[in-house]
Amino acid sequence: MIRIYFAAPTWSEYEPWLPAALTAAGIRAEILLEAPDPALIDYIVYAPSGPLADFRPFTRAKAVLSLWAGVEKIVSNQSLTQPLCRMVDPGLSESMVEYVTGHVLRHHLGMDRHIVNPGRIWDPTPPPLARQRPVAMLGLGELGLACARALQALNFPVQGWSRSAKAIDGLETFHGRDGLREVLSAAQIVVTLLPRTPETENILNAESLAWLPAGAVVINPGRGPLIDDGALLAALDAGRVGHATLDVFRTEPLPQDHPFQAHPGVTITPHVAADTRAPTASTVIAENIRRSEAGEPLLYLVDRARGY
Amino acid sequence: MIRIYFAAPTWSEYEPWLPAALTAAGIRAEILLEAPDPALIDYIVYAPSGPLADFRPFTRAKAVLSLWAGVEKIVSNQSLTQPLCRMVDPGLSESMVEYVTGHVLRHHLGMDRHIVNPGRIWDPTPPPLARQRPVAMLGLGELGLACARALQALNFPVQGWSRSAKAIDGLETFHGRDGLREVLSAAQIVVTLLPRTPETENILNAESLAWLPAGAVVINPGRGPLIDDGALLAALDAGRVGHATLDVFRTEPLPQDHPFQAHPGVTITPHVAADTRAPTASTVIAENIRRSEAGEPLLYLVDRARGY
Ligand SMILES: NC(=O)c1ccc[n+]([C@@H]2O[C@H](COP(=O)([O-])OP(=O)(O)OC[C@H]3O[C@@H](n4cnc5c(N)ncnc54)[C@H](OP(=O)(O)O)[C@@H]3O)[C@@H](O)[C@H]2O)c1
Ligand SMILES: NC(=O)c1ccc[n+]([C@@H]2O[C@H](COP(=O)([O-])OP(=O)(O)OC[C@H]3O[C@@H](n4cnc5c(N)ncnc54)[C@H](OP(=O)(O)O)[C@@H]3O)[C@@H](O)[C@H]2O)c1
Repeated sequence: MIRIYFAAPTWSEYEPWLPAALTAAGIRAEILLEAPDPALIDYIVYAPSGPLADFRPFTRAKAVLSLWAGVEKIVSNQSLTQPLCRMVDPGLSESMVEYVTGHVLRHHLGMDRHIVNPGRIWDPTPPPLARQRPVAMLGLGELGLACARALQALNFPVQGWSRSAKAIDGLETFHGRDGLREVLSAAQIVVTLLPRTPETENILNAESLAWLPAGAVVINPGRGPLIDDGALLAALDAGRVGHATLDVFRTEPLPQDHPFQAHPGVTITPHVAADTRAPTASTVIAENIRRSEAGEPLLYLVDRARGY
Repeated sequence: MIRIYFAAPTWSEYEPWLPAALTAAGIRAEILLEAPDPALIDYIVYAPSGPLADFRPFTRAKAVLSLWAGVEKIVSNQSLTQPLCRMVDPGLSESMVEYVTGHVLRHHLGMDRHIVNPGRIWDPTPPPLARQRPVAMLGLGELGLACARALQALNFPVQGWSRSAKAIDGLETFHGRDGLREVLSAAQIVVTLLPRTPETENILNAESLAWLPAGAVVINPGRGPLIDDGALLAALDAGRVGHATLDVFRTEPLPQDHPFQAHPGVTITPHVAADTRAPTASTVIAENIRRSEAGEPLLYLVDRARGY
């Protein structure tokens, strides 16, 4: 009998799914919502919003399975010596694709001036076609690549940027500082789907925002610290950036008095771009436990030196 | 030497493209912007916004080639005896797909409450996944089918409705009054891409709007008369319809005092969903003239009895 400590505040969401997913994977397990005796725990299901901060007492735990895709809040935890897996959930990826495609189309079509039109202006100037609207995708992991593919399917010319050099069929890719400059210089819309690491912090700053063509739109469903808030506000005020749609912030909920709140060039979405979905995520957790028990390699292992 | 009368007000858009497209199709032609001697004209390029209303003097014209996809303004013109072709333009289809996909995602994601959020409310409740958001597509022609496919690619469950019974791979289709009731009863979002004909006028009326689940969204990029305006307003006020995004109206531009203008549940877009694009449309016109000259059947012939 395997003991799983569910150290996340969302048990009510997982209760209908996780036990069934474990059974379907052939795993006999007991799920505990508290761990008075940490040394008895075999696996930890983790969320940064849960109670767990010190992993040292979990001497027998074979893996920590994050319910979140982004692991910046745990990756530098010095008490963690167990293997850490991040969440790659088909449901989460789907919702990110929907968010990114939706907001790219919103800006592409110029919807806001129709949604809010107090002057009742009738201006039938059509937007260009998507094929005339270049998009930069920063980050080509599970989420960035899925979003790039969805945008390409709608004819947007997409250029991608990542840490390592890549050869991806039908997608122009770049890396390094020069590569960043190249994709930003060509982009009318830029989407940031990077993890938060020391290298990605402030990747959109005064220098890199200045590489964008005037009026470009920034969409950030990655992490708040990817953007230098002050530099973005200055770029918006200077008209260099046309609009910013932000889902993530250095402090969440975004404080009521943060300058983004009142800025007409900023749309704030409340960290809803992509939620882990219990039905599909439960299957991912169960599969990783099955693998571990069968001596197979874990899926979605985090490289703790790299930070993601 | 073929004589083409360009009877549309958009010559400046076509000047860089149409002569080249004709040359590329191997056609030697003279394009006339006026036709003082109608009996000399071989083909008419037509738009309802142009000067032409009486086709009788064009005794030699082999076809009337509409620049518009919708032909309701010419199809009942009794002076027209020449074959009539409507516009099926890849550029136009692309922009319709972008408009429909964009506004479906906008409503699916509930964007409006983030775009306009004076109370600075932070409510991180995520939307359902697209796969949980059924869409009804009324009209499965060039545009309706392309939009249905794009929405399916984003996982929306789509049901389609058309005049004739159809068997379309991977798409559930319906026809007839019972079929309409069935697709509307299941839909959270309904898109109308029907031509305006006597049969489609007021297809969304008090009776059919009542078939929709409460809170459903109506997106109409087809034609204004598809909707009974009064019935839609009543359904919005009753909360039966959650929102309506309308691109087309019985009178365009929509009069400043039309009740849609002030209604918070209505978004008005100024007939911009899909514009014929001169680069691609020029190729379509040239190909149809080439076919006619070669004795091949014309593309996109309108069935005048059917009305589209
Ligand atoms: N807003 C939300 O609701 C939400 C939900 C889920 C996730 N997220 C965010 O989305 C992020 C991406 O998720 P994912 O699953 O796609 O992650 P992933 O699969 O780990 O991919 C990360 C991508 O970022 C690239 N990258 C990392 N460091 C970089 C650097 N220094 N320079 C350039 N590129 C770098 C990686 O490059 P390589 O390919 O070369 O390794 C990879 O392409 C998460 O970390 C999380 O912060 C947000
Ligand atoms: N807003 C804009 O910017 C814009 C731009 C372009 C076009 N439009 C509108 O979009 C419309 C559709 O264009 P399209 O190119 O897709 O036309 P299409 O290829 O002729 O397709 C029309 C579709 O409507 C169906 N239909 C016609 N009468 C019907 C009826 N009585 N009951 C049920 N279904 C009926 C047809 O059924 P069958 O398949 O059985 O024949 C067909 O599926 C145009 O007529 C125009 O009004 C709007």
